[in-house]
Amino acid sequence: MNAPILPHIDSPADIKGLTVEELNTLSAEVRQYIIDTLATHPGHLASSLGTVELTVALHYVFNTPEDKLVWDVGHQAYAHKILTGRRDRFPSIRTYGGLSGFPRMDESPYDAFGTGHSSTSISAALGMAVASALQHDTTRQHIAVIGDGSMTGGEAFEALNNAGVSRANILVILNDNGISIDKAVGGLSRYLTRLSSSPRYNAMKERVWNSLSGADGFSIKKRQRRFFQRLTSTAKTALLGGSNLFESLGFRYFGPIDGHNVEELVGMLERLKTMSGPRLLHVVTKKGKGLPLAEQNPVTYHAPGLYNSKTGCRLTKAQEEERPLTYHEVFGRTIIELAEMNPAIVAITPAMLTGSSLNMMMEQMPHRVFDVGIAEQHAVTFAAGMAAQGLVPFCNIYSSFAQRAYDQIVHDVALQKLHVVFCWDRAGLVGDDGPTHHGVFDLAALRPIPNLTIAAPMDEKELRDMMYTAQQADMGPFAIRYPRGAVVHTVWQTPFERQAVGKGRVIHEGEKLAIVGIGHITNAVIEAAELLREKHRMQVGVVDMRYLKPIDESLLHELFERYDYLLTVEDGAIIGGLGSAVTECYEAWKFAYRHHTVLIRTLGIPDWFITHGSIAQLHAELALDATGIAAAAVQLVGD
Amino acid sequence: MNAPILPHIDSPADIKGLTVEELNTLSAEVRQYIIDTLATHPGHLASSLGTVELTVALHYVFNTPEDKLVWDVGHQAYAHKILTGRRDRFPSIRTYGGLSGFPRMDESPYDAFGTGHSSTSISAALGMAVASALQHDTTRQHIAVIGDGSMTGGEAFEALNNAGVSRANILVILNDNGISIDKAVGGLSRYLTRLSSSPRYNAMKERVWNSLSGADGFSIKKRQRRFFQRLTSTAKTALLGGSNLFESLGFRYFGPIDGHNVEELVGMLERLKTMSGPRLLHVVTKKGKGLPLAEQNPVTYHAPGLYNSKTGCRLTKAQEEERPLTYHEVFGRTIIELAEMNPAIVAITPAMLTGSSLNMMMEQMPHRVFDVGIAEQHAVTFAAGMAAQGLVPFCNIYSSFAQRAYDQIVHDVALQKLHVVFCWDRAGLVGDDGPTHHGVFDLAALRPIPNLTIAAPMDEKELRDMMYTAQQADMGPFAIRYPRGAVVHTVWQTPFERQAVGKGRVIHEGEKLAIVGIGHITNAVIEAAELLREKHRMQVGVVDMRYLKPIDESLLHELFERYDYLLTVEDGAIIGGLGSAVTECYEAWKFAYRHHTVLIRTLGIPDWFITHGSIAQLHAELALDATGIAAAAVQLVGD
Repeated sequence: MNAPILPHIDSPADIKGLTVEELNTLSAEVRQYIIDTLATHPGHLASSLGTVELTVALHYVFNTPEDKLVWDVGHQAYAHKILTGRRDRFPSIRTYGGLSGFPRMDESPYDAFGTGHSSTSISAALGMAVASALQHDTTRQHIAVIGDGSMTGGEAFEALNNAGVSRANILVILNDNGISIDKAVGGLSRYLTRLSSSPRYNAMKERVWNSLSGADGFSIKKRQRRFFQRLTSTAKTALLGGSNLFESLGFRYFGPIDGHNVEELVGMLERLKTMSGPRLLHVVTKKGKGLPLAEQNPVTYHAPGLYNSKTGCRLTKAQEEERPLTYHEVFGRTIIELAEMNPAIVAITPAMLTGSSLNMMMEQMPHRVFDVGIAEQHAVTFAAGMAAQGLVPFCNIYSSFAQRAYDQIVHDVALQKLHVVFCWDRAGLVGDDGPTHHGVFDLAALRPIPNLTIAAPMDEKELRDMMYTAQQADMGPFAIRYPRGAVVHTVWQTPFERQAVGKGRVIHEGEKLAIVGIGHITNAVIEAAELLREKHRMQVGVVDMRYLKPIDESLLHELFERYDYLLTVEDGAIIGGLGSAVTECYEAWKFAYRHHTVLIRTLGIPDWFITHGSIAQLHAELALDATGIAAAAVQLVGD
Repeated sequence: MNAPILPHIDSPADIKGLTVEELNTLSAEVRQYIIDTLATHPGHLASSLGTVELTVALHYVFNTPEDKLVWDVGHQAYAHKILTGRRDRFPSIRTYGGLSGFPRMDESPYDAFGTGHSSTSISAALGMAVASALQHDTTRQHIAVIGDGSMTGGEAFEALNNAGVSRANILVILNDNGISIDKAVGGLSRYLTRLSSSPRYNAMKERVWNSLSGADGFSIKKRQRRFFQRLTSTAKTALLGGSNLFESLGFRYFGPIDGHNVEELVGMLERLKTMSGPRLLHVVTKKGKGLPLAEQNPVTYHAPGLYNSKTGCRLTKAQEEERPLTYHEVFGRTIIELAEMNPAIVAITPAMLTGSSLNMMMEQMPHRVFDVGIAEQHAVTFAAGMAAQGLVPFCNIYSSFAQRAYDQIVHDVALQKLHVVFCWDRAGLVGDDGPTHHGVFDLAALRPIPNLTIAAPMDEKELRDMMYTAQQADMGPFAIRYPRGAVVHTVWQTPFERQAVGKGRVIHEGEKLAIVGIGHITNAVIEAAELLREKHRMQVGVVDMRYLKPIDESLLHELFERYDYLLTVEDGAIIGGLGSAVTECYEAWKFAYRHHTVLIRTLGIPDWFITHGSIAQLHAELALDATGIAAAAVQLVGD
């Protein structure tokens, strides 16, 4: 066995001189490094294992960072990080102060564009390509690597439609693994499967490739060129009638080719590099490639947590039985209970079947659960259409992804007062995934929308009761936002109680100061109140607002009368959220009663983007943990 | 000539018994009624003229409102309104208290789903179809009528992708007129043109239709069926290789057929009605059909204003020379001046080339203007990609449509601090188009986004200066929102002055009360101050905040010290906007200085959706005109 190559790769320049055999060795080493590292430093495993050879080939063929390489979503870019000067820091991935789990422009010049949410890469690469053209740079290449799952997101289609008529120097690499996070769904996915499994097509491809098999290394360019010319001019026309979906939109289509064959990849990319205009290369890869358990269970191994690097066996499995439930699991179980009671209930997820825990309902009532693919906009209007016909759709979207559907929430649901129940999962800070995934704008951005009820449970009982309340007749548009992570109590399956919509509750009364929380962070408020009692002998009131909208004005008026100080606490943007709602209410109350008595201080997510790290670390840094809240209370009341 | 038919059509039931000839007559009458009415009651003319025969055929064949008919965007639905019990009220269209210019569920049971923004119809119809299936209703049809322009919006693709693998009873009618509002752009548009102009395809179609020409009325069903069977099994496979774009996604594709041939339409729709599953009918229509000037100038005649019903000549033409410029015209002229000075400037519009006035720059510097089609999400990320390469893109989107790109603004631009200048046109109340088009959520929804500068000019000089300021080096993400309608002064082309970002200005000082405005409505504030001086002998201060973010805290602190009362005025949602920003700042100031001295009252768009009507009417109704503002001031200060 030769000396390892990876330790000597400090930038893509170090890849350029390698032979095909060495590229294969390097790929194997990168794959093993990812497997070994993530075994003890959890991250997005399966996606990155699927793109190792593609990454090696891209950096071998193209001149990054001069050529621009945009990774859609970005959780498949670990090999890219390892090969672009971040090998040694790789074990820090997704930890506080460490590498981001996604490409970030401020982390490396090789990260041409930051990603995290899906389906943006073609738009960004097209923008760069158009910029290069305007700057008279005709040689620079602009590459978007996008999965088949991300390709279903509407923005990707908008970009294809726009790029197809441009002369922009853009290469789209469709990384087709048949998997979104769950199994990819929809017409496009079925079409791609047909395309890459067409027997006629593959037979011909095999025959031609076999005829090249005697060739060694990359000295076969002439024969390759002939092959491609033949492929382009005859075979594709005959087989696809010249109207393959991507060709319909104006792209030159190449592939499908094996995304784990470095030689084939390099050959094809070398060829594509010499061309200009919009091109799409269809690469077939296996998510989880190289780790048998991950290949077999790509959904589980999307982000498997800790595992044995030799066997791939997950280490958390046994512990999972004992760990507390998460909010999304309580959601997933509760909606089944509700759906059994109310036949009008259906559930919708845009490609987060497992993440939302709707996989449980999918098993039990498959006809009432709809995975619409990565398509948040469609998910919301689709729900609105269902509601218009008398169903009660629960539309479950991660808070930060729901930003994609802001217009549909306004225009299709709220304006028409349709009874859609939005469940914003992963609201608040989400931890390791960082700024692209923190769900911190939902409260503030949704609050101005008329007709919309906005609720946030502080524990699983409230989540269940809010879900139960939301599905009652004629509730109209109803949003419930709840966080990532474990619930609060040991017994989750409490009997349903209908809540009074727009009513908060006083957890306990106090003197001078009341702390007003909304959502899960109210548990930290309770802790803070205990700290204040123990350490400062302060008896502070604690209020669980439950509803941001309608806000409980009569409860707030009582607080204005009873207390001198109010401290509001939320895990959403401090601008425009609960604090603003309380402040607005106070100004209206002052206007009505001409009192000037209360001092209000608002705590929440400050006006900058929050980095990645554990949720506890981030809350501590932002003084949004019990200690921070208590300190703010002391400061507010003064000494 | 026979007696007119239209006066007897009070609902689609009255259409059912008509002969083909009568359907043709009815179509002509509906078309004439639209032309005659809109000549004096301005509305969306050309789109509706293009869909008359389609509308007649749909209501003839289908059993509305039991069958669900969703009109994408909805400004082509005038014939639909006329034929569904709203004939007599039709002249009230788009006026205060009159018919909406768009379908509205609360206006008629025949409006199965409200629209206004594009690309939602397939999602909504699919939701209804899935609901019917769950309710065991297998006969109900669910129809989405969508233009080729709207089909480029990503949500439409998301819906096609989802519908294509469903068994849902959905019929998509692609109304292909090659026009969005401006000329349709992109790969899809080019593809559709190719599809409908394929000589082989059309020759065969003609031959087969000719063979049917002896048949009368609708008694040809058997032969029609044979024709379609032949078409489906052989011709289409041969011509399109079985992989037409829509078929790729799982739809059965029919057409293209002539959308102005009622007989052909009825025959085809009868056939499609007997089928189930996802089907797409490609109908070719002419925007402006029947009014020669409108056919020739569909962009101008999209919403032509007043015109002569006989000749089609527009009556406003002569007056246009003398009328004051609009904000968008000042934008359109100013960006040319700036682009001449700064070679990095480019401009982007999602299908609003004329509406944004970027058509002027397109004429002068075509390589620096990008009409990306109806694709707000792509427009923003595309701009971000350009900015990542050193260009300074001005991304111009109507405020209410920018809601579509909320996530991209956060995730692609603000998070990466990219220097994109957003120009939100048609901000505030837009008048006739009503609640779907009012741009009232922008200020409140954008304010929580870190790194984003938010500006609103009160006149054209400020607009120019803000645009000039925004394109200066390293400005980062910068949003300027301005309203529909005329500017303020007579001389618009003032010399550029760089503004201090985040600084407001005192227009004049006063006693006790200062009124703080942002944007164009500040002109009403000035008027209100004059009223107060004249009628109430009150000398009130007037402040033009200019920037919502960063908010001018030092100016506000001065106001808190100097005045007892502050009245904030904005033409955006009162929840979360300027008023909230001032109130939040005041609470922070109170906390720092422990003063309780100022009473703040906030005026803005209240927490409900605002109807359609003239902007002046709506402002008066909401007490956001000078009189209303003055009254609020008097009430605040008390008597």
